[in-house]
This record gives sequence, C-alpha cells and structure tokens, in this order.
Amino acid sequence: MKIKDIGGEFALIDRLSRIAAVGHPDLVQGIGDDAAVIRTAPSPAPYLLVTTDILVEDRHFKRQWARPEQIGMKSVECNVSDIAAMGGKPTWMFISLVLSDEADLSWSENLYEGIAHACRRHHVFLAGGDTTRGEKIVINISLLGEVAEDRLCLRSQARVGDRLMVTGTLGASAAALSLLQARIQPSQYLLDKHLTPSCRLSEAQIIAPLAHAMIDISDGLGSEVYHLCQCSGVSARLEGSTIPLHADVTAAASLLGVAALDFALSGGEDFELLFSIAPEKIDALKKTGVPFNDVGEIIAGPGTPGINTADGRCIILPGGYDHFT
Amino acid sequence: MKIKDIGGEFALIDRLSRIAAVGHPDLVQGIGDDAAVIRTAPSPAPYLLVTTDILVEDRHFKRQWARPEQIGMKSVECNVSDIAAMGGKPTWMFISLVLSDEADLSWSENLYEGIAHACRRHHVFLAGGDTTRGEKIVINISLLGEVAEDRLCLRSQARVGDRLMVTGTLGASAAALSLLQARIQPSQYLLDKHLTPSCRLSEAQIIAPLAHAMIDISDGLGSEVYHLCQCSGVSARLEGSTIPLHADVTAAASLLGVAALDFALSGGEDFELLFSIAPEKIDALKKTGVPFNDVGEIIAGPGTPGINTADGRCIILPGGYDHFT
Repeated sequence: MKIKDIGGEFALIDRLSRIAAVGHPDLVQGIGDDAAVIRTAPSPAPYLLVTTDILVEDRHFKRQWARPEQIGMKSVECNVSDIAAMGGKPTWMFISLVLSDEADLSWSENLYEGIAHACRRHHVFLAGGDTTRGEKIVINISLLGEVAEDRLCLRSQARVGDRLMVTGTLGASAAALSLLQARIQPSQYLLDKHLTPSCRLSEAQIIAPLAHAMIDISDGLGSEVYHLCQCSGVSARLEGSTIPLHADVTAAASLLGVAALDFALSGGEDFELLFSIAPEKIDALKKTGVPFNDVGEIIAGPGTPGINTADGRCIILPGGYDHFT
Repeated sequence: MKIKDIGGEFALIDRLSRIAAVGHPDLVQGIGDDAAVIRTAPSPAPYLLVTTDILVEDRHFKRQWARPEQIGMKSVECNVSDIAAMGGKPTWMFISLVLSDEADLSWSENLYEGIAHACRRHHVFLAGGDTTRGEKIVINISLLGEVAEDRLCLRSQARVGDRLMVTGTLGASAAALSLLQARIQPSQYLLDKHLTPSCRLSEAQIIAPLAHAMIDISDGLGSEVYHLCQCSGVSARLEGSTIPLHADVTAAASLLGVAALDFALSGGEDFELLFSIAPEKIDALKKTGVPFNDVGEIIAGPGTPGINTADGRCIILPGGYDHFT
C-alpha cells in the first residue's frame, strides 16, 4: 500500500501523531496546531513555542523562478507565520540545509543573505544548524518562540457564534504560481506575494488578546477553516462574496479561465491569518487599526464547513492542498 | 566557485555562522558545539539545549542495508548523543520527513516504530513535525533538552594538563560501512554498531559533573579532538596504542588491507564520548563504574593536535569526515 492510497499527507501526519506525546503534563499543545506549546517553567512564565517546516527544491520552490535570497526569506516567513498564529513572538532559529556540492557558492551565500534579512526583520536569532549535501536542495527550519499564557491562540478555541475573520487578501501567491506554470508573466504584485511574502507577526500580536482561535493561511482558506472547525468541534459557514481578492487575482483567474475564489480557497502560501472572534470584541478590534475582513461565522457542529456562493447555493469547502494526493 | 572549492562543509558552516547570533545575552553557546545553549529563565533554571541533524537517503543511510526501524532509531540516537555530550538530558523532539508518494506505507510505519522505540528508551517525547514528499527520503530531527548550569560541558572548556578520555571502543561503525561497500558481510557486532548504535546518555550524565570539555564522537576521533582543541585554544597529543579498538575492527582492517586505527580516527558514527578531565578527578571517575580509556593529554597550543604512533613518530591527526570534500 502506498502513502497516497491512505489519503496522503494528512493521513500520514495522523499516523505520526500516534507515536507522539499524549497526556504529558507539560505539553499544552502537541501535533495538530501551527506550533507545539510547551510549559518549561511554572506560571506566569511564558510558554515555549516550537514549529518546524521542511522545504524541498522543485516541490516548494524552483531555482528558475526564485532568487536564492527570496527562497531564504520565504523559508523564514513561513515559520514565523506559524509562531505568529499562536499569538507568540519568534526567538531562536535552527536551520538544516541540504546543498549540492556542485552548487554555486554565491547561490548559497545569497540564500543565507535572504535568511539573515528575514531574521533581522522579525528579531529572530540564528543559533544553530546542520549542513550536508544531496542532489536536491532541502531547507528545514525549526523556529522557537514564546507566548504568554493569556495570549495563546489555539485552533481549538473557536466558539459557536464567533465571526470568522481574515487579514489581507487571499489567493495572490497561488495565482502567481498558476501563471508561472502556464508560462505567463504575473504582475509585480502577484510575483511579490509569491516570492517574497510577509507574514502577519505584528498584526497577530494585536489580534491574539481579542481572538478565540487563530491559524495561519498556508494551505488555502478552505483547508484552514476545515482544520479550525475540526479542532474546535464546530462547523462554519462562509460567505463567498466577502472573501477578499485583489484585482490582480481576479484578472489572473480570467486569463486562466478558472474561478478566482479557488485561488483563495485551495491555493497556498498566503501567510495571512484566519481567526475567530466573539461579536462583542469586533469594535475593539476595529480600534486597533488592523485590517481584516469578516468572511463568515462559526456554527454548531457536526457538519462539514460550507460556503454560500453568489448564486445562492451552499457548497462544501475544499480541503486544501495535500502534499501526497 | 563551488562549495567544495572553499573547503566543503566546515567552510560552509563557518559562512553560516557569520549570519548567526553573536553576543546575545541569552545565547550561552551558539553554532560551534553539539547543541545550542540558551538561557530561558534566570539562574538556577536549567538551560535549554537545541540540536538539529539532517539525514539524506543514500548519503547517511541506504535502504538496501538498513531496515526502516533501524534508520528511525539511529536518527534519534545521533541527536540524543548531541544533547548527552552537553551534559544534558533530552526532552522534546520535532521531526520533518520527506517521503516519496510511491513509498511503501509499511516502510514509513516501521520508520516511525524505530523513532518511537528510541524515544521511549531515552524518555524523549515527540511534540511536532512536518511531512512532505520528494524523490529521496530526508529525515530532519530537532531535539530539545535541558542541562543544569553546573553540569554544562562545552567543547571550549578543555584545560592544559587534562587527560583525554573516550568511552567504549571506536571505529566499529566505519569498519562495518567499509565492509558493506566492499560487499563483504560484517560481523554481527560491527553491523549492530553501524545500524543500531546506542549513544551514551546515562554515562554522559555521570561524566558531566567531573569533566571539563565533552563532545560526541560522530565524525571520527581525529575530527573531534581537533574541534575540542580549536574551541579551547589548546592542543593535544594522543597515544595511538591506547585508542580502544574492538577485535572485529582490527579483523576488518586486515581483511580490507587498511590501518585499523583509521576507522577510529577518520571513521564516523561511533556516538561515543570524548572528554577532557583534570587528573585529580580520575579516581572519582573510576568509582562511578563508567568504562573509559585514557587516550592522551591536552597540551598548550597553538599547534596542531598529533598522535604518537607505535613506531615512535608523531603524526598530525586527520581532520575527520567532511560532507563536501
């Protein structure tokens, strides 16, 4: 039996989670959120956060489309985004690299430059790593962070009646990727969103004290809503017309003959935030000046999260990107 | 210019360390030891230890030589060995896996079994990870640990006059690998040392309060002595005749027509400990019952560490394995 036969990545993670720590008194949150949450000292000491992401050449990035400094920056951003989504701030980074011995030295040095640039932006400090060689480039980042107990936002904290909010606009990175795959030059806006995305670290720290559940949008809005509902034991109803799309995303969809909303729902690497918030906290959120859009509501489960379309139907949310299917 | 032209892996790490944190008040030890050492709370709270290792198929393991549970176990051991060498105990593990979508499910599950087995042995808890797909299998483990301030053993703490000690015997893993490469079946002892090594976690915790500097022997004794001396600003003189070799290592060397000592000096993956200790602490060390061998002494630097050979010459220590040269 092959991995793809059991349902791909999520099924594999499920099987991995069977050997994971369960019930350890210091593990506040293990596998199943953007980062692990560990108690290292008695309250009110902050929790330790740990996230790890592995990126493989030609799967997560292509050298012909992205410059090494862009690949380095994006590698850091996607990890910082995970820490941000917990309400935390990143601290220490560890990087493992598989490089080819035939790799150009300046390429590697520019990769490092991109990593260093993103670290400086987020006040992250590189404290260790490992390098080896192989045929394809692999970048694994493990990022530590910390969060105060009362700022921690888990995926499991959504409550019935919460509004579902997203920061920024969605689908730009996926639209750029689709254009590149079709050999059409994306707009500078789309290219920037794909190659040098910025995660929402400062916004997350403002949102965290007001929100219930939070998750970063890295595998498409559909997938993230699905995770959030599953972890919280609730369901959701989104309004398709309220999902924020940039004009360039709509234009790209027209050009490619696809639905623009699909870039937001099933795309990836937006690194925006999805969060649930009690209606009575929305005024306080508005006063912070953080830009957000109300895209739906949390409803009682069980039941698969759905989305109301422009023509009055309700369709089941797509489950997002799976690396094995 | 290629990576191999600048001196391979160590030069690359050196360049990586240029973007690493320097002078941060909470970073007790950054790049340049078996694990990073971070202060997370005021003294006497233990330090946080973090190590990371990336293993690539056909570079660090071969599927035709090792069963998946063996690969899983060894992946954990090599990280636990790094934490042990700091005098610490391991706590939380994070694992990133690149698997092929054509990979057999039972292979992956047996890999997990091996990982779980080694975690249970060392009381390590899996708290997170990432999975994706690629052509070659890649296993990245990030392992956290902790160490009391007065148990911390750094590479930089060797002092002139210290004796250099090693646990166990050396070269068995390298001898097994050489035999396998020559299509000769290794003895069960050598095979076990190569495929299912056990690191010296419990011994390290006994040695740490008595030792000055400590390092795990993962890239050959020559390389580790060199690192320890460089970090401590000292030199060393080893006695070749005192370096402990198992009879099967000597037999393998005869069979292959090579010097047995080379397996110890330039081999890899012994996961034994090299440590320096003041002569007046040796009696106390003997009383602990930990098996060790005195292989030489720390002498004043500068000067390259050397080894006295059986025929009365002193030769420069080989520098160990480099992944890029």
